[in-house]
Amino acid sequence: MKIKELAQLIEGFVEGDNDIDIKGLSGIEKAKSGDLTFAIDEDKLKVAERSNASCILTNRTIRKSSKALIRVTNPKLSFLIIYNTFNTPKDRESFIHPMATVSNSARIGRNVWIGPNVSIEEGAEIGDHVIIESNSSIKKNCEIDSFCHIYPNVTLYENTKLQKNVTLHSGVVVGSDGFGYVKDKGKIYKFPQLGRVIIEDDVEIGSNTTIDRGSLSDTVIGAGTKIDNLCQIAHNVKIGKNALIAAQCGISGSTVIGDNVTMGGQAGIVDNVTIGNDVTIGAKSAVIGSIKSGEIVWGVPARPIAQTKRQMAVLSWLTKNFEIFSKKTKKED
Amino acid sequence: MKIKELAQLIEGFVEGDNDIDIKGLSGIEKAKSGDLTFAIDEDKLKVAERSNASCILTNRTIRKSSKALIRVTNPKLSFLIIYNTFNTPKDRESFIHPMATVSNSARIGRNVWIGPNVSIEEGAEIGDHVIIESNSSIKKNCEIDSFCHIYPNVTLYENTKLQKNVTLHSGVVVGSDGFGYVKDKGKIYKFPQLGRVIIEDDVEIGSNTTIDRGSLSDTVIGAGTKIDNLCQIAHNVKIGKNALIAAQCGISGSTVIGDNVTMGGQAGIVDNVTIGNDVTIGAKSAVIGSIKSGEIVWGVPARPIAQTKRQMAVLSWLTKNFEIFSKKTKKED
Amino acid sequence: MKIKELAQLIEGFVEGDNDIDIKGLSGIEKAKSGDLTFAIDEDKLKVAERSNASCILTNRTIRKSSKALIRVTNPKLSFLIIYNTFNTPKDRESFIHPMATVSNSARIGRNVWIGPNVSIEEGAEIGDHVIIESNSSIKKNCEIDSFCHIYPNVTLYENTKLQKNVTLHSGVVVGSDGFGYVKDKGKIYKFPQLGRVIIEDDVEIGSNTTIDRGSLSDTVIGAGTKIDNLCQIAHNVKIGKNALIAAQCGISGSTVIGDNVTMGGQAGIVDNVTIGNDVTIGAKSAVIGSIKSGEIVWGVPARPIAQTKRQMAVLSWLTKNFEIFSKKTKKED
Repeated sequence: MKIKELAQLIEGFVEGDNDIDIKGLSGIEKAKSGDLTFAIDEDKLKVAERSNASCILTNRTIRKSSKALIRVTNPKLSFLIIYNTFNTPKDRESFIHPMATVSNSARIGRNVWIGPNVSIEEGAEIGDHVIIESNSSIKKNCEIDSFCHIYPNVTLYENTKLQKNVTLHSGVVVGSDGFGYVKDKGKIYKFPQLGRVIIEDDVEIGSNTTIDRGSLSDTVIGAGTKIDNLCQIAHNVKIGKNALIAAQCGISGSTVIGDNVTMGGQAGIVDNVTIGNDVTIGAKSAVIGSIKSGEIVWGVPARPIAQTKRQMAVLSWLTKNFEIFSKKTKKED
Repeated sequence: MKIKELAQLIEGFVEGDNDIDIKGLSGIEKAKSGDLTFAIDEDKLKVAERSNASCILTNRTIRKSSKALIRVTNPKLSFLIIYNTFNTPKDRESFIHPMATVSNSARIGRNVWIGPNVSIEEGAEIGDHVIIESNSSIKKNCEIDSFCHIYPNVTLYENTKLQKNVTLHSGVVVGSDGFGYVKDKGKIYKFPQLGRVIIEDDVEIGSNTTIDRGSLSDTVIGAGTKIDNLCQIAHNVKIGKNALIAAQCGISGSTVIGDNVTMGGQAGIVDNVTIGNDVTIGAKSAVIGSIKSGEIVWGVPARPIAQTKRQMAVLSWLTKNFEIFSKKTKKED
Repeated sequence: MKIKELAQLIEGFVEGDNDIDIKGLSGIEKAKSGDLTFAIDEDKLKVAERSNASCILTNRTIRKSSKALIRVTNPKLSFLIIYNTFNTPKDRESFIHPMATVSNSARIGRNVWIGPNVSIEEGAEIGDHVIIESNSSIKKNCEIDSFCHIYPNVTLYENTKLQKNVTLHSGVVVGSDGFGYVKDKGKIYKFPQLGRVIIEDDVEIGSNTTIDRGSLSDTVIGAGTKIDNLCQIAHNVKIGKNALIAAQCGISGSTVIGDNVTMGGQAGIVDNVTIGNDVTIGAKSAVIGSIKSGEIVWGVPARPIAQTKRQMAVLSWLTKNFEIFSKKTKKED
């Protein structure tokens, strides 16, 4: 495809030779002649120019280049639009591996692909175009809607519900018992964990993340939310739509999170609090109370980010000027 | 069952209509007519009153209600006593799935249920009434005592010992090699990891938690202890009885923990320290030394909680009054 | 073997009876008569003397003992040299379990052991002397070089490359999609994750650790590096040689780490930074910028360790002297 045709596809503006043939897409590290790559800033542009790429997708304000450029508003987005145009996922053929164990009472849709050593228990319902890869276990009465993709070694406990187009990476566990106990006279009793997990449309969950079933209500992950690897979502948590939760975060029991929330890696939220919409929580923060919509917080404990940064600056200043301080305090008393 | 009969069962005191028939139990979110629910404070009582529940289990001091109440000392405990009365777990029938691989030298008890694709290696001993679900791997010479429940995709390394009534949720790994290396002249040598893991009676371990085998001694998890999801228990760690360890905690090598210890989520303890009995460690704490029995600690690094809170208050005060401070310091020198 | 023969093997100096027969090795906790144990300091020496051990391996400067000693420079290293001398791993016989599913197009080397319910997909190449244990899944076109050991319930995504002698413990996931999304007008689009993971020689990866494939470049783990349980290595990360990364660490996308780096447990590094060679990062640190070679950092955020410790000391001093401070500030204004 020629540069001018690609530019049309993403409403871009070409600078340089319109007619070069583009044969592939690649990152700037691996770009070879005939490739389209992208650069989001000056530094990356320099690297891209040194590569063998034939054309660079970049933003509208960056300097000119000796290579052909396509200028767009969001180069990364345009890159993925081009990628998706030429890489529509092919439907797998309908297939149940002979080493899979599928209950007679399970209902299996059309064009479903089930790998070796998959176990699907009684009453499960598997929608159309679902892929369940090797060594995954789907327990009783799970509902898996169309276009879901379950990678190897995943476990779904009974009654888990996945809506359309949910992706679960390897080692994910959905629906295990929440950490609910009652202490009485030095003994610990397990509290019933009877709810389920509901994962809405277009959610993607990273490897080895765990999502516990509700105790008496349900745990819910809102549509479009993306959760990275090794996160913990406790019982009864409700997460809104389009959250981005980075790796190793933990959300404690019964906490409610609004829409469009972002959490940096290794952050944690205590139980039974409410996080508003459009909240951003910095990496490694310890959230110990509710947060209003639109706030940006960071720190241990988490506070508005400006406040945390100011505290850090003050402590640095105090440490630097400690001699003066401590002397005066002692002297004058 | 009538309200008065339930009240008898839990030694509760009824307020309102004694004779209503209770048909089910539920949380306040999902309660319908005929259900018993519970409320532990005023806020929850209001929600419960707005629900269709026919009876509310609550404490002895809360206000009266238009709905029938059963007053008890610990409503959550009483709720679970009622639940357990009507939900005794049924014994599964003795069953070994044809797709399971069980070594001829393994000893299997009575009423054992083994799911598809389970692998049980040479010399393993499986007690009575044990459940091992699909895709779990039990390596050589493991001992699993009666009434243990192993969920799907669990791995037990060789020689792991589970005493009675241990529950392991999906993705748990018990007995993997500890992180023990010796550095010499820039090279890293693996130190032998020869110990085993012993998990005592009534322990429950959350999904994807990892417990390493001892290097030369054993790793031990004491009776009644409950560990949440995604925790790391390193080699040679000894944990006492009835600990409650929340999600994503890490306990480093050879650390010894007493009885009745509580750890909040994402807390960590360094290696080779001793934590006494009845210690409480706040969420996200970094414990960098031994702790005496009975202490409550919090923070990074962890200190007695009052001290950590006071430090935070002082730093807030200093930040607020920073202008005055910094001016004076500069002026007077 | 006699003490004098063992001493020769490790270039040690014997103090006491040269001729005692040593029949086994053990830690000081479990040592019985005829055993060799080791003690790295005075405290451990006392424990070793109270044990039934017949000989103690210790350093060159420690006091004399009533028991036979072998003095060496690094007792732990010498202990493992003796251990390895008498415990060379035996080659397993060539074996493919009938319950394994191996693609016809996969190439399997000599003396390969493949357990039950292993799935090996199209185009995979398995080198000589490789062990792949039960319930592991190896996806398309993976390359596994000789002497690799894959424990149960591991997943390798397509195109993953393991070089020689790599050990992956149970539940490890290598090659899953990185957390790469582009936001546009409130919608979240998945960015293509097309790279692979390359794990070089002699790497060991702990249970349930996750390593994501590169997005457009590759994720690389350098030769000799050891990673503990439950760590997260994000897309495009490059880790140098001989790193020691303790449990529950997280390394964010595209970060580059030099050789001989050490990370304490639960530490995290942000994305797109560069960590030099020989850097030490203390437990639970939050690394928010690049670090030069040779530095030792600690804290949230991470700074040179002396600076973090001084800040903590200053804050403690301020808290203790707060009364004086706050009074004076108020008085004088």
